[in-house]
Amino acid sequence: MSKEVSNKQIIFKDYIHGFPKESDMILKTSIIKLKVPDECNDAVLVKNLYLSCDPYMRSRMSKIDDNYVPIFTPSEPMSGDGVAKVVDSSHPDFKKGDLVTAIIGWEEYTLIKSTETHFIRKIHHTNVPLSYHIGILGVPGMTAYTGFYEISKPQQGDTVFVSAALGAVGQLVGQFAKLSGCYVVGSAGTRDKVDLLKTKFGFNDAFNYREETDLDAALKRCFPDGIDIYFDNVGGEMLDAVLPNMKFNSRIATCGMISQYNLKQAEGVRNLLYIMAKQIRMQGFLVYHYRHLYPKLLDLVAPLLEEGEIAYVEDVAEGLESAPAALIGLFSGRNVGKQLVRVASD
Amino acid sequence: MSKEVSNKQIIFKDYIHGFPKESDMILKTSIIKLKVPDECNDAVLVKNLYLSCDPYMRSRMSKIDDNYVPIFTPSEPMSGDGVAKVVDSSHPDFKKGDLVTAIIGWEEYTLIKSTETHFIRKIHHTNVPLSYHIGILGVPGMTAYTGFYEISKPQQGDTVFVSAALGAVGQLVGQFAKLSGCYVVGSAGTRDKVDLLKTKFGFNDAFNYREETDLDAALKRCFPDGIDIYFDNVGGEMLDAVLPNMKFNSRIATCGMISQYNLKQAEGVRNLLYIMAKQIRMQGFLVYHYRHLYPKLLDLVAPLLEEGEIAYVEDVAEGLESAPAALIGLFSGRNVGKQLVRVASD
Repeated sequence: MSKEVSNKQIIFKDYIHGFPKESDMILKTSIIKLKVPDECNDAVLVKNLYLSCDPYMRSRMSKIDDNYVPIFTPSEPMSGDGVAKVVDSSHPDFKKGDLVTAIIGWEEYTLIKSTETHFIRKIHHTNVPLSYHIGILGVPGMTAYTGFYEISKPQQGDTVFVSAALGAVGQLVGQFAKLSGCYVVGSAGTRDKVDLLKTKFGFNDAFNYREETDLDAALKRCFPDGIDIYFDNVGGEMLDAVLPNMKFNSRIATCGMISQYNLKQAEGVRNLLYIMAKQIRMQGFLVYHYRHLYPKLLDLVAPLLEEGEIAYVEDVAEGLESAPAALIGLFSGRNVGKQLVRVASD
Repeated sequence: MSKEVSNKQIIFKDYIHGFPKESDMILKTSIIKLKVPDECNDAVLVKNLYLSCDPYMRSRMSKIDDNYVPIFTPSEPMSGDGVAKVVDSSHPDFKKGDLVTAIIGWEEYTLIKSTETHFIRKIHHTNVPLSYHIGILGVPGMTAYTGFYEISKPQQGDTVFVSAALGAVGQLVGQFAKLSGCYVVGSAGTRDKVDLLKTKFGFNDAFNYREETDLDAALKRCFPDGIDIYFDNVGGEMLDAVLPNMKFNSRIATCGMISQYNLKQAEGVRNLLYIMAKQIRMQGFLVYHYRHLYPKLLDLVAPLLEEGEIAYVEDVAEGLESAPAALIGLFSGRNVGKQLVRVASD
C-alpha cells in the first residue's frame, strides 16, 4: 500500500474580466497517493518545489476562443512552470529523486500523465540555485535571449530601451545589451527598482515611469539621438511614447503588453505612422516557438553565472498559500525581479 | 535673346491642418525664359508633361519638424514626381528633346538646378505610355515591388490582403501576388472599383469597405483561415480589424496610412497584442531607400507590359489647373487608379 498524503491546491474558480483578485483562486485540500497509478504508463508523480508567476498567466484566466496559450479550466488547479522532484515514475527517463522542470499544477504534488505536453525536463546544472531553472535558465531566460538576439538583432553601439526592466525578462535583456556593447536604459515603477537597474544590473540609465509626467520627454532625455531597439514588455501608453523616439531602421521586439492585460478594452496606440516613416520593424514572438535556441542560451549564460558576471534577482513568496497574491502582485509591479513561490524546500 | 513665355504655377499657400482644400493652392502666372541662365552649370530646363498626385504629399503640407519627406515652402510651387521634356540644358548628360522623369514643380516649366536632388533620369523605355514612368515603372511600381517582395516575403499559396487596392500601388500588389501564386483580396471604396479589382486585375475577391458594417466580419468572410500578408495602405480602423485576422508568423507591410493623414489626431489601434500572440512582423518602408531594386522591377514588369499581361489603370486630370482638385480627390477616393495630371501633351 502506498502512502496517502494531503495535497493542497490553488483552484482556478472561473473566468474573469479585469484585474484578477485573490478570491478568483481558492485553496483546497485533496488527498493523493504518492505512487503513479498502475494504469498510467510513462507518467511521473512529482513533489513541487517552486512555482513561477508570469504575466502571460492572466491571458489564461479569460475565456478567449483563439488564445495563444491554453486557458485554465474552472475548478481545476492553476498551472504553470515549476521546479519539482520526482516521487514516483513509470517513465523510463525519470526516476525517484530526479529534479525536473515542467508545467505543474499549483499544488503540492502533481501527477504528470503526459511528459510531452508538460515539457518535463531533467535538471542537469545543479551548481546554481534550483529556482534559476524557471528563471534565468528557464522561460524568462529564453524569452530575453530570443527577443534580444533573435528578434532585435543588436549591433554594437545600439541604443536599447527596456520597459518593465527589472522584471524576470527585462533584467536579462539589459545585461545582454551591455554584453553586446549597447547603451541601455530601463523603465520601472519604483525608485528602488530604478536604483537597482543602475547599480546592480549596469543599465546606463533608468527612470521611474510613474514619476514622469511626460513619457516622451523622459525618452528624449535618455535618448537624445533616438532608440535603435525597444524591448517592449508593457505595450499601451509607453509604446505610443516610444514610437516617435525610434531611430530610422529601428526594431521593436514585442514581448508582452502587461499594461493591457487587465483592461476591458486595450488602449489605442496612435503613433503607428512612425512604423512607416522610420522604417521600423515591430515583431512579436512567443518563446515556445524558439526552443531550439536553448543550447545557445546555456552557452551564453552558464559561464557568466559561474563567474558571477550576470545577476538575477528573484522575489520569492513563501508557501503555496501565497501564490494568488504573488500572481496578482505582478500587475501592480509589487514584485522586485522574477516572481516565484516556494512550495517546499526539498 | 531667348524666348520668354508665361509659366502657370500652382503655388502652395501655407501649412494646413486637416483636409486640404483647393484654396490651399493658388494658380499664378509668372514669366520664364526658355533657356538655362548662364550662371547655372549642370542645370536642366524642362517642359512638364505629367504630374503625379500622391497621398504622401499631404505630409508635405503640414509643418512637422521631424518629417520623413521635405515639407513644402509657402508661396513656392507645389512639387512632386513628373514626366518632362528637356527644353534647354547646361548638363552634359541631358540635351534638348530628352524625355525625363524628375521631381518637378507644379508648373508648366521647371528649371532644375540640382539634377541630383531632383532625381532626374532619362526615359529609355519609350514603347509604353509616357505616364507609366511615374506609375508602374516609377515610384508606385517600386513601392509595390519593395513592399511586396522585399518586405512581405511572399510564399506560394499565401493569402494576401491589400487595402486601397485600386490605388497606384495596390493594383500592382494584387497582380504581383497573383504572379507569386498567392490568394489575394482587395478592399476599395466603391462598387465599380471592387468590380474592376475582380475583373481587370484578377483579385480572387474584393469588398467595398464603405458598405461593410463590420470589417472584422468582412475579413473573416474573405479569409476564413486568416491572412499571411497584409499590404497596408490605409492604417487606422482597417489595420485594427486586420490584426486579429492575421495568421501565425504573418507579415504586415506598412506602406501608408491614408486614412490618418488628415486627422487632427490619429485613430488609436487597439489590437496590437496580436503582434505578439501571432508572431506578426509589422514593417514599414520608404521606397526612396530601396532604389537599388529598380532593375529588378524593370526585369519583372517590362516583359509583362510588352505581353499585355499586367494592367495599370490611371486617372488623368487634364490641365495644370485641375491639379489641386486631383490631389484632394485622393483623400476621398475619387480617383480610379493612379492619379495624374496632364500638363501638356508634348
